[in-house]
Amino acid sequence: MSHAPIKPRTPPGVMELLPRDQIAFQRMLDTIRRNYERFGFLPVETPVMELSEVLLTKSGGETERQVYFVQSTGALGKAAQGEGDGLPELALRFDLTVPLARYVAEHEHDLAFPFRRYQMQRVYRGERAQRGRFREFYQCDIDVVGKDSLSTRFDAEIPAVIHAVFSELAIGRFTIQLNNRKLMRGFFEAQGVVDPDLQARVLREVDKLDKRGADYVRETLTGDGFGLSPESVAAILAFVGIRSTSHADALARLDALDPSNGALQEGVAELREVLELVRALGVPESDYALNFSIARGLDYYTGTVYETTLDDYPQIGSICSGGRYENLASHYTKSKLPGVGISIGLTRLFWQLREAGLVKTADSSVQVLVTQMDAESLPHCLSLARELRDAGLNTEVVMEPSKLARQFKYADKAGIRFVTVLGADEIGKGTVTVKDLRRADQFEVARAELAQALRVELAQPDMEARA
Amino acid sequence: MSHAPIKPRTPPGVMELLPRDQIAFQRMLDTIRRNYERFGFLPVETPVMELSEVLLTKSGGETERQVYFVQSTGALGKAAQGEGDGLPELALRFDLTVPLARYVAEHEHDLAFPFRRYQMQRVYRGERAQRGRFREFYQCDIDVVGKDSLSTRFDAEIPAVIHAVFSELAIGRFTIQLNNRKLMRGFFEAQGVVDPDLQARVLREVDKLDKRGADYVRETLTGDGFGLSPESVAAILAFVGIRSTSHADALARLDALDPSNGALQEGVAELREVLELVRALGVPESDYALNFSIARGLDYYTGTVYETTLDDYPQIGSICSGGRYENLASHYTKSKLPGVGISIGLTRLFWQLREAGLVKTADSSVQVLVTQMDAESLPHCLSLARELRDAGLNTEVVMEPSKLARQFKYADKAGIRFVTVLGADEIGKGTVTVKDLRRADQFEVARAELAQALRVELAQPDMEARA
Repeated sequence: MSHAPIKPRTPPGVMELLPRDQIAFQRMLDTIRRNYERFGFLPVETPVMELSEVLLTKSGGETERQVYFVQSTGALGKAAQGEGDGLPELALRFDLTVPLARYVAEHEHDLAFPFRRYQMQRVYRGERAQRGRFREFYQCDIDVVGKDSLSTRFDAEIPAVIHAVFSELAIGRFTIQLNNRKLMRGFFEAQGVVDPDLQARVLREVDKLDKRGADYVRETLTGDGFGLSPESVAAILAFVGIRSTSHADALARLDALDPSNGALQEGVAELREVLELVRALGVPESDYALNFSIARGLDYYTGTVYETTLDDYPQIGSICSGGRYENLASHYTKSKLPGVGISIGLTRLFWQLREAGLVKTADSSVQVLVTQMDAESLPHCLSLARELRDAGLNTEVVMEPSKLARQFKYADKAGIRFVTVLGADEIGKGTVTVKDLRRADQFEVARAELAQALRVELAQPDMEARA
Repeated sequence: MSHAPIKPRTPPGVMELLPRDQIAFQRMLDTIRRNYERFGFLPVETPVMELSEVLLTKSGGETERQVYFVQSTGALGKAAQGEGDGLPELALRFDLTVPLARYVAEHEHDLAFPFRRYQMQRVYRGERAQRGRFREFYQCDIDVVGKDSLSTRFDAEIPAVIHAVFSELAIGRFTIQLNNRKLMRGFFEAQGVVDPDLQARVLREVDKLDKRGADYVRETLTGDGFGLSPESVAAILAFVGIRSTSHADALARLDALDPSNGALQEGVAELREVLELVRALGVPESDYALNFSIARGLDYYTGTVYETTLDDYPQIGSICSGGRYENLASHYTKSKLPGVGISIGLTRLFWQLREAGLVKTADSSVQVLVTQMDAESLPHCLSLARELRDAGLNTEVVMEPSKLARQFKYADKAGIRFVTVLGADEIGKGTVTVKDLRRADQFEVARAELAQALRVELAQPDMEARA
């Protein structure tokens, strides 16, 4: 063709991976899914496109400003001719919570409650292009949604799921941090900070503690915009600084709170129950803690709230967050649907973990490369590959003959661990020569025993690090 | 809230499933992925949004008319004020082939060739709304892409993959049908049908054989629009009617073709090599056949072409199609990138299989329900659940106590196979009572042996059908 090539490139703000990074990413997705399923959550997938009218129930918010709208060629033509009225009919989901609300309301009569679902799909936001900010990213969510009511006990399952997921992901020590919105509300009201918007603004100032220091925050909160008393500010700063150091310490911290404050004590009772059951679920006490500075979205969460941080990488921030909400789907149904859930933003997390050197390019998903000595041996190679595949081994065959050294080099570069050699000698003896590129080891084995031998090797724990 | 609820609903032309159907769908996706990986294909995911300029290299085609364009709120505002020039910047992918071409061209220097990739993602087409037509649907593709050249041997791997996938999907007997575009071209040229467009038009008429009958097709092809001789038409109809009945018959059919026709014999040689290696790869000869009526996209495929049909459900049409192409990414790079690949349109296939009663609602992904006799036993239930989960069993715990009969009914309705009962009696003896809802069987087992006992049960082949 004579035309100049178009430069092949992706739009800004998306993450596209080379295969071995994709394998690493896929393994994380698989681990999360496996653990979500292990805790009895059921899979749901929703369409990437929702009706704009259904998706954008709250108008004018930050979210709507970031929404991507979708138009077919036909709809676009009509809009250009001024025939369209207002917003395009379709838009891309910007999270998995609104689709969950729509799904539960739409299928309410076909679902069993409490409804436990997981959903792991990509969402879309027209973010400002910026390093580490993504316009397309995976969210991996679980939620338990009750009808009319949902026991606080369900709040205790969530840390157990978080613990299982991040233990298996093996990205380092982590702490699941717990707080409770009722407890916070009760405390702030007692300090004279009654209006929820004011609470939110106070918390935003408190968030600047690390950056600006205590003096700055104290001055701001006692200053014109807030007008809090120095005593209240001191109490607030002491409160939000509370972190428990063990299970017993967490209970003691709760015991120390004002017993006469009703709203606060509601939160205390909920946190006590959650802590007790989190322990019964086997989460080690080193891996969870109270943290009274955690608030999450103040307009949405109403009870327990969660954040999880990596102990050695606090700068990464929360890697998994969520909480308890009062009513999931008030825009779509008159049924009251309280719930509790969390979300892992995997695309951003993966990016951060790579930046921190905590995830590496994976070995190939191909476990065995069947090399080819010469064209005559190809049928033997193909039937060997068939035996390996039938035994469940991911196997690639060299289809175009080349020098054996080149085939080995290919396997090494591709991250394939085992290479088989099937020469005239081996074919005559009914054996296969195997090179283990990870252990730099070589052995000959009867062909009938090859698959089993490789499976044993692969089942052994991975003792050696690989670059 | 006082506003009237918005009716929760999905846009037309998408498939959204209830959890147990989603589980059935997910199992098909997993099976396809497992087999793609077993044959040494590497995972790739690309962003759902591509730059329009990159995606729409060919202008004015049917495809472009069906494209969905994407605009952020900001871009939409500018377009409304007439500031936009032409098409929106972003569009949703309409297949996985164009993204593959872009990906390979973009990452050419980071990939090893032949590059073997699989990709299983959703694609978007602004189809006319119609029963069984989807605007969002999964494609599950594999391709092997060579640099400069790619041996015909790779064409032989594809039927082996198809065979592995559909054997394991277990949706009934199937036949992988093979043809070769060079063979077809050689044959048609010998009948005086030289122009590729004319060949395409002739094949379109031939496609009407079943519906309109041979007389109609014969009249059309000898009539004004085509002007073929009655002898040519007879030869064409005989040719496109050829189906082989065994491996030997396939070779005999090829032997019987005009040995003096060079182009045709090129195709014959390729098909012979493919047939030989397909056999070496262990595909039973009952499961593949020559079918000289198969053409696929005439402007794209240049060698081997594939279609796969269910023997007992021919009306479903091809469930997996593809072929060999000359150059994947001529729009993006000057490198020559020949390849061979197939695609399974899983959303449509799943829909058709459900309509035909060939896939059923799955059992729950939850394998065990831990019931709760009373609130006091909850900690015991939670630690039992923990043991089961640690042993790899997907386990749900009843968190809110209710009558045991109600808990059993819930498990049955939800498709959960095992239900455990942990009463004061069992707690005292260190045992668990298990009810197997599938076998309507009940047994008591030492708690330490429970997980292993359930794993043995679950590993046994599924002998009984469930509605």
